[in-house]
Amino acid sequence: MSDVAMAGRRARGGGAARRAERTAVSLDTAKFITRNIPNFEILNEEALQIIEWNAETVLEEVGVNFLENPGALALWRAAGADVRGERVHIPRGLARKLCATAPRSFTQAARNPERNVEIGGRNLVLAPVYGPPFVRDREGGRRYATMADFKNFVKLGYMSKWLHHSGGTVCEPTDVAVNKRHLDMLHAHMTLSDKPFMGSVTEPVRAADSVEMAKLLFGADFVDQNVVMTSLININSPLTFDSTMMGALEVYAKAGQAAIISPFIVGGAMAPVTVAGTLTQVLAEVLAGVAYSQLVRPGAPVIFGAFVTSIDMNSGAPTFGTPEAAHITYGAGQLARRLGLPYRSGGAFCGSKLPDAQAAYETANSLNMALLAGVNFMLHACGWLEGGLVSSYEKFVMDADQLGTLHHLAKGIAVDENGQGMDAIREVGPGGHYLGCAHTQANFKTAFWRSDLLDYKPFETWDEEGARDTEALAAERVKKQLADYQAPALDEGIRESLDDYVARKKAAEPDAFI
Amino acid sequence: MSDVAMAGRRARGGGAARRAERTAVSLDTAKFITRNIPNFEILNEEALQIIEWNAETVLEEVGVNFLENPGALALWRAAGADVRGERVHIPRGLARKLCATAPRSFTQAARNPERNVEIGGRNLVLAPVYGPPFVRDREGGRRYATMADFKNFVKLGYMSKWLHHSGGTVCEPTDVAVNKRHLDMLHAHMTLSDKPFMGSVTEPVRAADSVEMAKLLFGADFVDQNVVMTSLININSPLTFDSTMMGALEVYAKAGQAAIISPFIVGGAMAPVTVAGTLTQVLAEVLAGVAYSQLVRPGAPVIFGAFVTSIDMNSGAPTFGTPEAAHITYGAGQLARRLGLPYRSGGAFCGSKLPDAQAAYETANSLNMALLAGVNFMLHACGWLEGGLVSSYEKFVMDADQLGTLHHLAKGIAVDENGQGMDAIREVGPGGHYLGCAHTQANFKTAFWRSDLLDYKPFETWDEEGARDTEALAAERVKKQLADYQAPALDEGIRESLDDYVARKKAAEPDAFI
Repeated sequence: MSDVAMAGRRARGGGAARRAERTAVSLDTAKFITRNIPNFEILNEEALQIIEWNAETVLEEVGVNFLENPGALALWRAAGADVRGERVHIPRGLARKLCATAPRSFTQAARNPERNVEIGGRNLVLAPVYGPPFVRDREGGRRYATMADFKNFVKLGYMSKWLHHSGGTVCEPTDVAVNKRHLDMLHAHMTLSDKPFMGSVTEPVRAADSVEMAKLLFGADFVDQNVVMTSLININSPLTFDSTMMGALEVYAKAGQAAIISPFIVGGAMAPVTVAGTLTQVLAEVLAGVAYSQLVRPGAPVIFGAFVTSIDMNSGAPTFGTPEAAHITYGAGQLARRLGLPYRSGGAFCGSKLPDAQAAYETANSLNMALLAGVNFMLHACGWLEGGLVSSYEKFVMDADQLGTLHHLAKGIAVDENGQGMDAIREVGPGGHYLGCAHTQANFKTAFWRSDLLDYKPFETWDEEGARDTEALAAERVKKQLADYQAPALDEGIRESLDDYVARKKAAEPDAFI
Repeated sequence: MSDVAMAGRRARGGGAARRAERTAVSLDTAKFITRNIPNFEILNEEALQIIEWNAETVLEEVGVNFLENPGALALWRAAGADVRGERVHIPRGLARKLCATAPRSFTQAARNPERNVEIGGRNLVLAPVYGPPFVRDREGGRRYATMADFKNFVKLGYMSKWLHHSGGTVCEPTDVAVNKRHLDMLHAHMTLSDKPFMGSVTEPVRAADSVEMAKLLFGADFVDQNVVMTSLININSPLTFDSTMMGALEVYAKAGQAAIISPFIVGGAMAPVTVAGTLTQVLAEVLAGVAYSQLVRPGAPVIFGAFVTSIDMNSGAPTFGTPEAAHITYGAGQLARRLGLPYRSGGAFCGSKLPDAQAAYETANSLNMALLAGVNFMLHACGWLEGGLVSSYEKFVMDADQLGTLHHLAKGIAVDENGQGMDAIREVGPGGHYLGCAHTQANFKTAFWRSDLLDYKPFETWDEEGARDTEALAAERVKKQLADYQAPALDEGIRESLDDYVARKKAAEPDAFI
């Protein structure tokens, strides 16, 4: 081969390699976090025992309501509970005993096996915001979310290095009928991303649709034998389990699919105004909900959930990133570990209307506490704005970047010989400089976390480039990521079967908008 | 007395009471934090022992430099160190033994005894930003700091409920001669605030001026018998103690005044690029510096300092709020506690040019880690911007507001009968609402931390009021606080003696601007 031909090969090879590298960078997804640091244990043994005792007292004396659900009442009665009307009084110890069949940890499969996540143990899996009816971006302002927005957020999630999970209702696509939008949402997660995702919970039939579509994507046998969806079952706090959510839970439990059993609490409104009282109620609710999941199918994979915010007693508005929310998140983590269940809590919570300093203070408070609280599954890990009313494009990429800090924090401190760095200290000595020493050269690429978004430039450079704030940098990144997006490969036959399922289901009934 | 006269009395009383209440709100200063939560212990016993062993190895084998300081070398030689030129090799165990005479905790007196702070133990004392040559505000942008700015920041510190300490160089008053500005700065802290403050360290004679002025303010006997200043002695990392800083330390130690002995490290430049290596060097430097303070005067009050940031290896810029800084802050806290010394670290650190989301993410990361790391004295707790080059007016009040979260986090979780809230759960029951129940009514005023600055309003109200971001809300608060400011009362004789001292000293030598 001539040198010219070789050069041509190298050039092509180099170009392809560079393109591959660029692609690799944009599609790089970090493995879920496995903590090598302790959890923060805020409650002592005595306090934990008091709360656990009180939760059982609540279940026995006060009881929980299972509304419009005779099947559930029958299961509880058969298990030994004292059922009076729709009120279930659970004898001390029964709920905890029933919870024992739930797995301590489970794997949720993604269609790309490299994206599988292990939920439980010392792991932390990060998923994006869930549920907002509005979106906001810098140029367009605040507006009702549409299916086009939904697809954009799924794409951004797919492009986010530190996000392990595609989530569920990343925003509510309000331009699609309520009884059909779950089909479009699942189709988007299944085709636009290859990360794991969540199923629909708004009606039991929509949960069933989720399972059917998952069977088209993964194959029916695979879905029978593996967890391929983790879905969000909210408890109607205080102490109430409605038939819609329980119906969805029943569908998923019977299909062997995972559910987060999650009290939804604004402190002082749906639970006592004190932290220990809220923890008592959270534990009672999770014990009852998880026990019920195991009555439906022993061994069904479930997560101990706790969505808890504080409240501004002046206005009644929920508040985020507050010390009381941190107390509850730390305490609930301890209760979850003692119960032997994976733990869901935390998120990029904030009450701010804009992705500004308030949003970032509150979010950072929330993310840090969630890492140290031992959370295993963090929904809302990026994009949450305005108390969950808004999915913010800019905040999505800002938060997603910050999630990198959690990965590095969780690594802990290496104290092996390289970590100790004694050779470096000996080499450099008093008054010297470490930048050029051998130890620095060997370690600098991986030693420090580096943001892909925030500004590290000298003032003068930053000023010349337009003196942009974080929101402006994020808006640019959103545009670039959406422009760079390329869908992961998907078998054409599978895609057609998903298209067909959605079309058939949509044609089968009229649109409903409530 | 007639009803009319009574009504007049009530009206006057009511007006005075309301005025007093307004005044009380603006001048309310929270007591320093005493933690009722555990510290976060990131390193296990084995790792701590390795780092402690290595630090002693560094002191013995590598040694430390005491530059242009024959007195220090003589003290070290007499204490048993191996002194070669200006290099001091400290035999294993000697430095730690010398450190044993330093107090575990000390009280710094303020001229208002209600503002006294206890530094050490489970306490956390918060002080504002220190050292920036620039200031920034929303209207005026970024500019060199002046004495007028300095006074404004002292006033804001005095007005800040969650700030316990007036600090030191809240910004560099660049319009006053370098050899005289310490006089104006001390005068401002002493007259515009009644919170505790820091002394000058830029030359030993300026430290001596600080002690003299403190004697005018507190009385000479009081200063002899009490700590009235805590000053910042930076170590010239790696492993170098220069004569300016050591000279100031000597002045303060001999006067029984407190000093923070603090490595100043940008990781990878002034210390090894790995966390355990940095911790080793930090410990070696603090051991040497504290031991030296005890050679100068056994029992001199000192603080184990650690100012450590990471670095962006692309640009060489220091970076803030990063995971590696958190690792070091947690680890150094453990080392300080094992050494039995109060611990200084943390701050409202950020690299951002604006008080935007980047600033708040990085700051919240830093503040949270400092609380859990067991920090006893936090300099830079508010107002820090742009890597410490800028004191930001808006960020000062934003951060100062966030410091409230640390106070509430540190309270921990009450599990007494009221905390348990069982009566509330019994009263409300499944499906009920807690807002009106007796337990909520009894607790709602103190149950939840509430920001005095951030926005909790409904979207529509916020939008109608101008859709302001956090910086805009903060700018308004800055203006209001400076307008509302009233100086604390000060004996006229003391004020005149301080005025006179400053005038006399200023007249005694020509201005120097380097």
